[in-house]
Amino acid sequence: MLYLIGLGLSYESDITVRGLETVKKCKRVYLEAYTSILMAADQTTLESFYGRPVILADRELVETGSDEILAGADVDDVAFLVVGDPFGATTHTDLVIRARELGIGVETIHNASVMNAVGACGLQLYNFGQTVSLVFFTESWKPDSFYAKILENRKIGLHTLLLLDIKVKEQSIENMARGRLIYEPPRYMDIATACLQLLEIEETRKEQAYTPDTPCVAISRLGSPTQTFKAGTLKELSEYDSGEPLHSLVMLGRQVHDLELEYLYQFVDDREKFKQTVVQDQEFFKPAPYVPPEEVDSD
Amino acid sequence: MLYLIGLGLSYESDITVRGLETVKKCKRVYLEAYTSILMAADQTTLESFYGRPVILADRELVETGSDEILAGADVDDVAFLVVGDPFGATTHTDLVIRARELGIGVETIHNASVMNAVGACGLQLYNFGQTVSLVFFTESWKPDSFYAKILENRKIGLHTLLLLDIKVKEQSIENMARGRLIYEPPRYMDIATACLQLLEIEETRKEQAYTPDTPCVAISRLGSPTQTFKAGTLKELSEYDSGEPLHSLVMLGRQVHDLELEYLYQFVDDREKFKQTVVQDQEFFKPAPYVPPEEVDSD
Repeated sequence: MLYLIGLGLSYESDITVRGLETVKKCKRVYLEAYTSILMAADQTTLESFYGRPVILADRELVETGSDEILAGADVDDVAFLVVGDPFGATTHTDLVIRARELGIGVETIHNASVMNAVGACGLQLYNFGQTVSLVFFTESWKPDSFYAKILENRKIGLHTLLLLDIKVKEQSIENMARGRLIYEPPRYMDIATACLQLLEIEETRKEQAYTPDTPCVAISRLGSPTQTFKAGTLKELSEYDSGEPLHSLVMLGRQVHDLELEYLYQFVDDREKFKQTVVQDQEFFKPAPYVPPEEVDSD
Repeated sequence: MLYLIGLGLSYESDITVRGLETVKKCKRVYLEAYTSILMAADQTTLESFYGRPVILADRELVETGSDEILAGADVDDVAFLVVGDPFGATTHTDLVIRARELGIGVETIHNASVMNAVGACGLQLYNFGQTVSLVFFTESWKPDSFYAKILENRKIGLHTLLLLDIKVKEQSIENMARGRLIYEPPRYMDIATACLQLLEIEETRKEQAYTPDTPCVAISRLGSPTQTFKAGTLKELSEYDSGEPLHSLVMLGRQVHDLELEYLYQFVDDREKFKQTVVQDQEFFKPAPYVPPEEVDSD
C-alpha cells in the first residue's frame, strides 16, 4: 500500500496521530523535499520523531523515479510524506495514477495546507478565487500569467492567494551546462520581492488589476511558532521586512465583509487609514449603481 | 490560553499529535457540534481517546455564550475543537475577537478540511473559484444566491465546490412556537437532493450557469474509511444513491486539464461518454476564437 501523508505546516508533531501510526509501520518512508519545507523540523528531527529513516525525494526522483518509490509497495507499506496536504498546492496525482497502474492500493491521510490554513488571517475561505503562483523573475524571464487570474478574481470581488516561489536544490545554468552536481543555496521569495514583482507587472500592463494602493495581507511562517500577519497596501508591503521563510501573500477582493475587516485591524499600523484604503480599493470593478426603472405614468 | 484545534475529517486519530497533546492538558474541552460531524467517531469515542470529558457546544452556546466558553481562559487552558479546520468553511473569528478583547491568548492548531482535502478527487485546488453553500429548500424558501456565484466561477473557467446543508439540533416551527425543546432528527443533504435543487434553480433562472449535462463530481464521506467519488452529469447524479453522509459536490469549470480528466476516469461509468460531456460543457463561456487581424496591404 502507498500512503500519501500530509505533514501539516510546521512542527514534526503537526502530523496526525493516524499519520504517525502509519509512518511507524511503513517499510520505507519518503519525504517530498522540493516544493515546500517543514518550518520547525528538519530531516533529523523527523527521523527521531518517527523512529525510522527518512529518504529525501527530490524532483527528479518523484517525477522520473516513481517506480523506485513504488517498488514492492504491492506487498509492503510505503509512506510518501508531503508538507501540507498531498493534494494541496502541488499535487501528486501522477504518482497515484502510476500506483494504480501497478495495482498498488493508495490511501491518503490529509492535513492542513496553506490552501485552507490561510483562513487564519481572518479572510473567509469562501471568498477566495483561484490561487496563483509567483515565480522569481530574472532579467530576461518575467512570467506574468498570474496577472490575468488576479484580474478575473478581482472583477468578481474575490480575494487571491499568491503562493511565493521556493527554489531548492537548483543548479546554476553554468553548473548545469558543465554537468556539475553543485546546487545553489535554497531561496524563498519574501513579501517585499513578491510585491515589487507585482508592481513591476502592473507598471508594464497598466490594466489596473490592482494598484500600489491595493490592500494585501502578508502571511509569514503560517502555523509556526513565529507566525506573523501584516496588512497594508502593496506599496507599503514592498518595503516590509518579512523575516524568515515561508511567506504567502493575499490580495484582497472587493467583497470585504465587516467581520473580515474587523479581524484584519489587529495586523495594521493605522486602522483608519487601512479602512480608507479598503473602501477606496472597492471602487475598482464595482458594479454600476442600481438605477430604478423610470416610472411609467399609467394614466 | 484558548486553543482552536482542528479535528480533521473522520477518525478520532485524525487530530494532530500536537493537537492531542494540547487537548490532554486543557482544563475544559469544547466540541463545536452544529456545523459538521466527525464521520468515524462520536463524543464517547473522543472522550475515551482524549481521556477527558468533552462538552458539546451548540450554536446557541458558541454564538451567545462565548463568555462561558472563555471563562477563566486567561489563567487556564481551554480547547475549542472544530471538525475540519477552525478557519475552514465555518470560521470562528468572532470567538477569537472576543478572546482578544478579554486579553486571552489564542493559538490555532490547523488540520485538513473539505476546503483543501477536496483535491483528493483529482481536480487541482488552484482551479477552484469561490465556494458556495446549498441549503435545504422548503416549499416557500429556495435561496439561490449560489447561482450567481457558480455563474461567475464558470465564466472564468473555474471549478466550484458546493458545501451541502447539515441540520443538527433544529426545532420544528411548531415546537419552536410552543417553546418545546424538542429537536428534529439530524438531516444531511445527499448528492441527489443537491443536484435536483440545482436543476430546479436552473429551470427557473434559465441563465445557463450550468445545464443538466454539466459534469460534476460527487464526494462522499471524504477522508473516511468509506470515501467515495463519483463523476457524472448533474442529471445522472440527481439519480445517484450517495449513501451515508457527509457529502459535497464539485461542479467542473471550463478549464479541465488532461491530468485532471485522466484522474476522474476512475470514478466514471463510461470514460468516452464522460470525456464527450466535458468537451461539450467546455463550449459554455468559451472565449471567442482568435481571429487574426486582416493583413494590411503595405503597397
